[in-house]
Amino acid sequence: MKVRAAVAHKAGAPLSIETVELDGPKAGEVLIEIKATGICHTDEFTLSGADPEGLFPAILGHEGAGIVVDVGPGVTSLKKGDHVIPLYTPECRNCEYCLSGKTNLCQAIRATQGKGLMPDGTSRFRIGSSMVHHYMGCSTFANFTVLPEIAVAKIRPDAPFDKVCYIGCGVTTGLGAVINTARVEPGANVVVFGLGGIGLNVIQGARMVGANMIVGVDINPGRKALAEKFGMTHFVNPKEIKGDVVPHLVELTKGGADYSFECVGNVQLMRQALECCHKGWGVSIIIGVAGAGQEISTRPFQLVTGRVWKGTAFGGAKGRTDVPKIVDWYMDKKINIDDLITHTLPLERINEGFDLMHAGKSIRTVVVY
Amino acid sequence: MKVRAAVAHKAGAPLSIETVELDGPKAGEVLIEIKATGICHTDEFTLSGADPEGLFPAILGHEGAGIVVDVGPGVTSLKKGDHVIPLYTPECRNCEYCLSGKTNLCQAIRATQGKGLMPDGTSRFRIGSSMVHHYMGCSTFANFTVLPEIAVAKIRPDAPFDKVCYIGCGVTTGLGAVINTARVEPGANVVVFGLGGIGLNVIQGARMVGANMIVGVDINPGRKALAEKFGMTHFVNPKEIKGDVVPHLVELTKGGADYSFECVGNVQLMRQALECCHKGWGVSIIIGVAGAGQEISTRPFQLVTGRVWKGTAFGGAKGRTDVPKIVDWYMDKKINIDDLITHTLPLERINEGFDLMHAGKSIRTVVVY
Repeated sequence: MKVRAAVAHKAGAPLSIETVELDGPKAGEVLIEIKATGICHTDEFTLSGADPEGLFPAILGHEGAGIVVDVGPGVTSLKKGDHVIPLYTPECRNCEYCLSGKTNLCQAIRATQGKGLMPDGTSRFRIGSSMVHHYMGCSTFANFTVLPEIAVAKIRPDAPFDKVCYIGCGVTTGLGAVINTARVEPGANVVVFGLGGIGLNVIQGARMVGANMIVGVDINPGRKALAEKFGMTHFVNPKEIKGDVVPHLVELTKGGADYSFECVGNVQLMRQALECCHKGWGVSIIIGVAGAGQEISTRPFQLVTGRVWKGTAFGGAKGRTDVPKIVDWYMDKKINIDDLITHTLPLERINEGFDLMHAGKSIRTVVVY
Repeated sequence: MKVRAAVAHKAGAPLSIETVELDGPKAGEVLIEIKATGICHTDEFTLSGADPEGLFPAILGHEGAGIVVDVGPGVTSLKKGDHVIPLYTPECRNCEYCLSGKTNLCQAIRATQGKGLMPDGTSRFRIGSSMVHHYMGCSTFANFTVLPEIAVAKIRPDAPFDKVCYIGCGVTTGLGAVINTARVEPGANVVVFGLGGIGLNVIQGARMVGANMIVGVDINPGRKALAEKFGMTHFVNPKEIKGDVVPHLVELTKGGADYSFECVGNVQLMRQALECCHKGWGVSIIIGVAGAGQEISTRPFQLVTGRVWKGTAFGGAKGRTDVPKIVDWYMDKKINIDDLITHTLPLERINEGFDLMHAGKSIRTVVVY
């Protein structure tokens, strides 16, 4: 079938809106009509050429929501008409990782997904006779896409696509880091580095689970008001304090953060996030993605005296199980997504969404089909 | 009273066996006759001058066992005749740290202990009119010493001093890292870097809790037989394998260690220990003490894909609570201490114990009074 897509032909070039050929779903796969998709920094990371594993041509996008319009042979958990969110981290429920109970990093289709292919080793997308790569197993920058059944979360039908698409990445990553990875408990003091989309979701996650102090750290004072709306109790601008931010944060939290989160992807901030943690028990979670080859460092004394350094991917969430719950939380108004979606654009203007991101003018831009 | 002690007058010099004046216990303190003490690498670290916080003159030693011979006013949990192990990590059971349930790093007397003083800010040791520092709050290189009540573990009276003194540091550090910090579960695969006293205790801890593979890594093949006796199932000598040890260990453990332990104090090994952990859930514990100013590094990707970096001090053990239990384990033959104590010397020959350590000839030397 013919679909409308924003195609990334090469690194550094704008996306090109084109008609692309899409094959129907094979065994274990589903065809989804994408109704809305967010534009995430990870799409930008790949499009810019900074991602060493980036493949071109490709159809980017991994933060979508839509409706199942066809299913391949053997699909049992989804049917035509189901409302769904595509998952770049699948949940097969059968691999060693899924069964471990310790991680969300299902490995069932990792090898082919990393190559921009479906699990059978081929692509469903073509332009003429040339193959176009899938991206993060999702390719939501097309109005139709094909995914493996194990990489699709079924959600309630009354949830608005142009809001809950954000649960496909940013919302779940931030909330999940608090709930699944850190397991923040009521009364804990939390420090969040970076008040972008991820950081704001960490903040509302911390508020939801009953954190005490929720300290936001950002050099952009323009983020303060929105962060406060999401639950931030204290704002620290490293440019406005005297001296190093680490002792400032330790003093503010009366001993250090019980939990800290790095939501930027800056290795210096990752170190600060660890070192502002409370002696004896502070846990620091890396969420941001650092540039290729960059390294984190600290003195081992920081760990020997009880701090713990962890990371998280997709907020430690098992997508088919957890994403529908987060959609419920949104519908029950436990979490706020509407205020994070600052811009909505049609597919034809998707490149403007990347421009807004570069200019720091958006929290999240959503493309609607 | 006059006591016999090995005095460290200055960094880099041998200990001097002398008669020293010891004041009796003040309020909340107890006088202990030390019957035996181990010689630990930490004593050597301070004596060598490498410890930036080392104080001289001092009476070193922190791995002792003995008998309470007097108690000061207000002491309620100990009485004359009790058999005890001094604790360099106290357990006051009242401070924020003790009450957190998350750490063993009681802070009740930390400030004065770090200055080589008793909690009232004075020393009990003198030579003539000159003050001599306490060390790690213990000073077990004297046949009598004074400790705060909160830094003394009461043990059963039938345990031999010349063996259970080792529980005052090395045994508890190794076992505790497995049991309290890592919480290794039955069936887990464990990798241990460094087969000295700490590493061997990690190994027997892993065996005690039912680990599956217990891989020891050391460049000294002479340690293999003893480590196997303690429970090591696989030995890896980095000098005898082709290429990097990390992929070798990942392959050997079929995906990586569930838990790894660095028992040397080498920051390169700390990195290897983290990176040989299993994607998704591997936890690496730093036990060794690195040189002043040295740093650990890795790519944040290691953490974002699920590995966890932690450290431990005194094995995460709460001394007054946990040390008596470990003494019971020894008496019940659940753990082996006898084979780790390779040399026993009288106080007069204590410097030979340091020589044996330097030469790598001893696991543990115990001094008996």
